[in-house]
Amino acid sequence: MNQLTRYLPILAWGRQYNRQTLVSDMLAAVIVTIMLIPQSLAYALLAGLPAEMGLYASILPLVAYGIFGTSRTLSVGPVAVVSLMTASAVGQIAATGSVGYLEAAMLLALMSGLFLLAMGLLRAGFLANFLSHPVIAGFITASGIIIAFSQLKHVLGISAHGENLLQMLISLARHLGDTNPITVAVGVPVLVFLFWVRSGLKPLLVKLGMADYPASLLAKTGPVLGVVATSVAAYYFGLGEKGVSLVGKVPVGLPNLQIPALDNPAWKHLLVSAIFISIIGFVESVSVGHTLAAKRRQKISPDQELIGLGAANIASSFSGGYPVTGGFARSVVNFDAGAVTPAAGMYTAGGIALAAIFFTPYLAYLPTATLAATIIVAVLSLVDLSILKKTWNYAKSDFIAVATTLLVTLGLGVETGVACGVFASLALHLYKTSKPHMAVVGEVPGTEHYRNVNRHRVITHSDILSLRVDESLYFANASYIEDRIYALLESQPEVRHVVLMCTAVNEIDLSALEALESINTRLIDHGIKLHLSEVKGPVMDTLQRSHFLQDLSGQIFLSHHQAVTSLSRHPATPGTGPSQNWDI
Amino acid sequence: MNQLTRYLPILAWGRQYNRQTLVSDMLAAVIVTIMLIPQSLAYALLAGLPAEMGLYASILPLVAYGIFGTSRTLSVGPVAVVSLMTASAVGQIAATGSVGYLEAAMLLALMSGLFLLAMGLLRAGFLANFLSHPVIAGFITASGIIIAFSQLKHVLGISAHGENLLQMLISLARHLGDTNPITVAVGVPVLVFLFWVRSGLKPLLVKLGMADYPASLLAKTGPVLGVVATSVAAYYFGLGEKGVSLVGKVPVGLPNLQIPALDNPAWKHLLVSAIFISIIGFVESVSVGHTLAAKRRQKISPDQELIGLGAANIASSFSGGYPVTGGFARSVVNFDAGAVTPAAGMYTAGGIALAAIFFTPYLAYLPTATLAATIIVAVLSLVDLSILKKTWNYAKSDFIAVATTLLVTLGLGVETGVACGVFASLALHLYKTSKPHMAVVGEVPGTEHYRNVNRHRVITHSDILSLRVDESLYFANASYIEDRIYALLESQPEVRHVVLMCTAVNEIDLSALEALESINTRLIDHGIKLHLSEVKGPVMDTLQRSHFLQDLSGQIFLSHHQAVTSLSRHPATPGTGPSQNWDI
Repeated sequence: MNQLTRYLPILAWGRQYNRQTLVSDMLAAVIVTIMLIPQSLAYALLAGLPAEMGLYASILPLVAYGIFGTSRTLSVGPVAVVSLMTASAVGQIAATGSVGYLEAAMLLALMSGLFLLAMGLLRAGFLANFLSHPVIAGFITASGIIIAFSQLKHVLGISAHGENLLQMLISLARHLGDTNPITVAVGVPVLVFLFWVRSGLKPLLVKLGMADYPASLLAKTGPVLGVVATSVAAYYFGLGEKGVSLVGKVPVGLPNLQIPALDNPAWKHLLVSAIFISIIGFVESVSVGHTLAAKRRQKISPDQELIGLGAANIASSFSGGYPVTGGFARSVVNFDAGAVTPAAGMYTAGGIALAAIFFTPYLAYLPTATLAATIIVAVLSLVDLSILKKTWNYAKSDFIAVATTLLVTLGLGVETGVACGVFASLALHLYKTSKPHMAVVGEVPGTEHYRNVNRHRVITHSDILSLRVDESLYFANASYIEDRIYALLESQPEVRHVVLMCTAVNEIDLSALEALESINTRLIDHGIKLHLSEVKGPVMDTLQRSHFLQDLSGQIFLSHHQAVTSLSRHPATPGTGPSQNWDI
Repeated sequence: MNQLTRYLPILAWGRQYNRQTLVSDMLAAVIVTIMLIPQSLAYALLAGLPAEMGLYASILPLVAYGIFGTSRTLSVGPVAVVSLMTASAVGQIAATGSVGYLEAAMLLALMSGLFLLAMGLLRAGFLANFLSHPVIAGFITASGIIIAFSQLKHVLGISAHGENLLQMLISLARHLGDTNPITVAVGVPVLVFLFWVRSGLKPLLVKLGMADYPASLLAKTGPVLGVVATSVAAYYFGLGEKGVSLVGKVPVGLPNLQIPALDNPAWKHLLVSAIFISIIGFVESVSVGHTLAAKRRQKISPDQELIGLGAANIASSFSGGYPVTGGFARSVVNFDAGAVTPAAGMYTAGGIALAAIFFTPYLAYLPTATLAATIIVAVLSLVDLSILKKTWNYAKSDFIAVATTLLVTLGLGVETGVACGVFASLALHLYKTSKPHMAVVGEVPGTEHYRNVNRHRVITHSDILSLRVDESLYFANASYIEDRIYALLESQPEVRHVVLMCTAVNEIDLSALEALESINTRLIDHGIKLHLSEVKGPVMDTLQRSHFLQDLSGQIFLSHHQAVTSLSRHPATPGTGPSQNWDI
């Protein structure tokens, strides 16, 4: 039973469902539905898909996530970055607007769903931890910039395209002369209105006498006003005939259920993209889910989230949608609007389904510029260049990771950007551990504590070299450490005992063990004994499975203080502090 | 001047050159030359090249290394693994025996030389440290097995080939019926003789009254007897007409100097192989160089070694040779024979040049089977399957690295094997650091030392959670550690202070800093203070560049003991030892 509840979280929260949760969830669903309609349409446009696919991707996926997901308030559906990645993946194998394009988008959702599901069943959620914050910040900001510029053409009524940001900007500049003034007359006011809605609508509502909380919720639904106003204007003034691009005729009703052809040869070309979309969607979704769950002292299970998102994407592909994930903005609105359980998402699905049935005829007159403006406003909030300054000040390796991800994403797209970012951050981490910090340590007077002779006024003994290696000993640093120890000893002819303080040594692998054995042998030749202190339990367990402890010329000490007090034959030298010139 | 000596080590040792070193070096050169002649011919055969290219690759490269190399006793030239890799790289773009094949082999040497040179100038020698001992042991053993089986056909006088070991074995079995009995009659006795030379020749010489040291040196030249005996037999009995494969006509004299065409379109196909050959050759050479240098308390400089090997490979390519590196067997012989400086290598080059001028006419009658037997005996000494048992007992991650490298090399070749081995060892290392060991610690009675409550009988305080995280805090483990801390606190309602003991924390990157900030905030909500103890200097430097220290609810303590004594308000609980059930 427990096992079943783990894989079907609905069995847990569903049992406690009551009238009160129903009311809360219903209210949240109404707000989110109104907010989602323009957003879903807009993200479908961003993905290069017909507007209705945005709605389709907001119906069944929400129900599927509601059954399998562990976050109580996550709202699943089309999101900006995944839509951009879908456009870039599918755009490489089919022309926008072709049947092949739609089929490929659905296939991509299916592949992504299956991949997520497999990751979940294999409990591979921890892999997402290898995307560091700098990498995530870098690609989110870069995606925001790319998306915003990619939508600018719709607001200007021109056509422009490019493989990367630079090409896009050049193409935009080249076509600037073709700007359609009427499109601009629609697009720019909507853009201004939407920016104002973000910050100005709520204060206005409060001024008009509305309470703070409902005002902030109502303000979230503001964008729908832009949709209605521009659609009405397009209808009455016949803007379609005046060169303003409109959404056009959209099929009425719910999507047909169908299983995408898995024998579509496109799958080979989509495989890498499906994996990237899955991982990036998962990371976005889990970080939102974590944040919201923490606010209510709830928990999400990353591995089960993979299953929930997998189910949502499979559902999306079966119902004419494209890849989805848990979105930041929509989830926050859902949470703020008082959603208590995933049922809120199911009611939202119902709302969107009603919209697909009754609202689609009116979409024909919706200007594309309105949707583009919706996207621009949404994604500009993702752009945060301050991370560059923050990482520059904090640690250069984090800065390099951000800058690499940002620049490569801008130049070569999200997939390459993220891959380079992850590679750079792992490479930097490994590089640092391959040349670890080492410190000669001495006793802090009046304590049994040992610290770096370069930083503290400590007591040392001329016949003992107390050395702290600040890293696990493993293949990448084994010979580096060996060389450093020999170099240190050359400058210390009086030393008779080398004590390696192993507080930071969490592992000694075979390569490092061989290095230790060779240090031990070489020191014996020089009449010096090698000792270890403060070796941790797990490391000691490993060493006991080798011959090293028998071969070791010295001893293993529980604490470094015990090592020094039991070994020293020379008088202690009071520390002169940081003036000592140890080159460490 | 110092800078010049660094890049031209010959200026350092050349200045101290005297009559005594001359005599030592000359003696060593004579021994090594006699040993090298059959070996060079054999490795050229292994590489699929005409026998004389093995000689050419043993002349100028030795001179070039003598000028630029830092090892006093390393002997550079064709070696088994690099010859195998050359055959596999060049074999993919040209047919064995074609002009294109020879040109590609020379181009490969040039590319490898340029790559090594570039690595040396960029001081990228540390990269070789990422090849762990298990990976090296795995591919050396696998290469030995592949090479031995690949030469078996020459001893049997049949033709067989395969892309991998399995195919090769099947092909061998299939052609077993074609075995040429006369070839076997030559090959098998030579094989037995060479095996006997390894262990039986020296005792025999000693028995005959020779002193121990000259006997062991002379024994190294034993294989040349096999060459002479079988060549003479082939000449007198006309074995060539009886189906025994002979080396055949070989050009007399020194190689023509020439620069390989760099516009050869083959370079694109050879690039990856050139990089692999360079790295693997470098690793082999440096490990031999290190071992020998340590015996005489000398040093080698890995970055300058890259330059030395780069020069050797460029020289090889200019003089009709193929990729070379410092070989294990030949260097040990050079060392044992008393070589004192790289001049020994230069005299060896002179010896090989004389052989190329005067000896080549006699090569026509040398049976291929003799060379194959030379190779088989040499490489079988590389095969060491005991590493599997050793790593299995010591650490499973090392075992996985060995097994992966061994199996993939056997199945898919050296390049793929090494790549998979390096990938596996890095992935395992990162995986371990992503789920680090954590220990709740308490005071070891009578000391100021704190150890794991699960392994030691220690004193704890119910209001303080003393937690030691055994890893640097970085993106891959930040959220794991965060979750673990929350889980621990749930089972400890009395805790008012969490003290993170940072002895093993060598880095806190931005992702981990954000995790710490969120832990800090969440603990404040629960009325718990977060403290850090024993934060190392470099980590403290980083933290001081952020807001964390201002936001931290608790303090930073120099030692964990100070933290506990100054924070505790509750009486100490004497430890009950390992019976406590902390699930860590």
